Amino acid sequence: MLCPGCVNYGIPQAQRVARMFPNVAVIGLHTVFEHHDVTGPAALKVFLHEFGVRFPVGIDRHDVDPGQGQSLPVTMRRYGLEGTPTTLLFDKRGQLIFQHLGKVDDLALGVMLGQLIAAPGPED
Amino acid sequence: MLCPGCVNYGIPQAQRVARMFPNVAVIGLHTVFEHHDVTGPAALKVFLHEFGVRFPVGIDRHDVDPGQGQSLPVTMRRYGLEGTPTTLLFDKRGQLIFQHLGKVDDLALGVMLGQLIAAPGPED
Amino acid sequence: MLCPGCVNYGIPQAQRVARMFPNVAVIGLHTVFEHHDVTGPAALKVFLHEFGVRFPVGIDRHDVDPGQGQSLPVTMRRYGLEGTPTTLLFDKRGQLIFQHLGKVDDLALGVMLGQLIAAPGPED
Amino acid sequence: MLCPGCVNYGIPQAQRVARMFPNVAVIGLHTVFEHHDVTGPAALKVFLHEFGVRFPVGIDRHDVDPGQGQSLPVTMRRYGLEGTPTTLLFDKRGQLIFQHLGKVDDLALGVMLGQLIAAPGPED
Repeated sequence: MLCPGCVNYGIPQAQRVARMFPNVAVIGLHTVFEHHDVTGPAALKVFLHEFGVRFPVGIDRHDVDPGQGQSLPVTMRRYGLEGTPTTLLFDKRGQLIFQHLGKVDDLALGVMLGQLIAAPGPED
Repeated sequence: MLCPGCVNYGIPQAQRVARMFPNVAVIGLHTVFEHHDVTGPAALKVFLHEFGVRFPVGIDRHDVDPGQGQSLPVTMRRYGLEGTPTTLLFDKRGQLIFQHLGKVDDLALGVMLGQLIAAPGPED
Repeated sequence: MLCPGCVNYGIPQAQRVARMFPNVAVIGLHTVFEHHDVTGPAALKVFLHEFGVRFPVGIDRHDVDPGQGQSLPVTMRRYGLEGTPTTLLFDKRGQLIFQHLGKVDDLALGVMLGQLIAAPGPED
Repeated sequence: MLCPGCVNYGIPQAQRVARMFPNVAVIGLHTVFEHHDVTGPAALKVFLHEFGVRFPVGIDRHDVDPGQGQSLPVTMRRYGLEGTPTTLLFDKRGQLIFQHLGKVDDLALGVMLGQLIAAPGPED
């Protein structure tokens, strides 16, 4: 929420995907690795309301007290996220297909989403 | 080439698709229904060179002398094109899947292209 | 800082003015009329750092405890600001020349600034 | 008219200036140094109509037959124009104040225009 790349590119793009393609599950992750005191759940709630974010947003859990140093939250560590915004695409089986830090071109993202939508799922 | 929507949206988008997705066949159609005297093959050639258009561009054929009135060229009539720019998407079997007059959103175009790329072709 | 119009238009435009025209004094005003608990000075400091805001930013003072209701801060009341972002232009004598809530066109802002720069000041 | 920088930046910016600031005299110059056969007055007329250009546009005169080689037209030579689009700003006395080949930032152009508007003219 205090990351310019997220506010300018990542979040608006996720909002357009969520609005245009109801069969794509869009989930946000509020992953905080610094400035914890001003980016807590209360601030996040206001941000999501003011910026009109309607898709669900999870909060990345810290298993080490962030006050103890620059510790990274659990999901950020698990996926090796190097910063924000990071876009991750998963197929219908839950496999991670694409991971990118920074701006993703709309056309390129669309083609990847279209291929994932067209691919058979676990129940096909 | 003298159509603002083509120059501003249609052609740049087609160029990006051609550059980013080599497995997508991008073909331009120079379909002229007015101003024939200043939009002939010589003017088209200069336009394509100056605007850096690298994909093949066909010239829509007139079976009636355009001097005889506001006649539409053959391909424009066959597909019922209502103006320019019009985007048409065909699947691997050559079936027309999508047709739209005006600007097409990058994300929406990408998703349609991705689905067409992922779908089985006649030889699969 | 949690206002989409400020983040998307107002602040980037102010940053460009500050960078391009060193003889224009650009001053930000952090004027909070809701969500006080998550937009305090500590959050503002992080925001300004992350978004690269280099021009000075004042914090609008509350003379009534905001906990008492939806009270407006002093400067916001004095200038009758109706929301954020609001752009205000002052001439060299300190007279308010222009006030606008919402996005301001770059060309229009530039012409107004150019006229103010060219006008004689109190010492001319 | 077959110059991408003109179509994408130069002409739309000139159109906005002409629309927004009626006290600024906007004049186009169709200066052709190549492809003369497809950029003549008939083609220009269609282009200006299709792209909605309302301000007056002059045609740069050739004093040497362009068929004789890559000769430059008169006004292009006189101002040392190195290509298109070139933006030239003149003050109220007709003095050339600014000349730039390529894209001009809206904010920067606005500030220059505002200063020229504010400066005294020959009759002040």
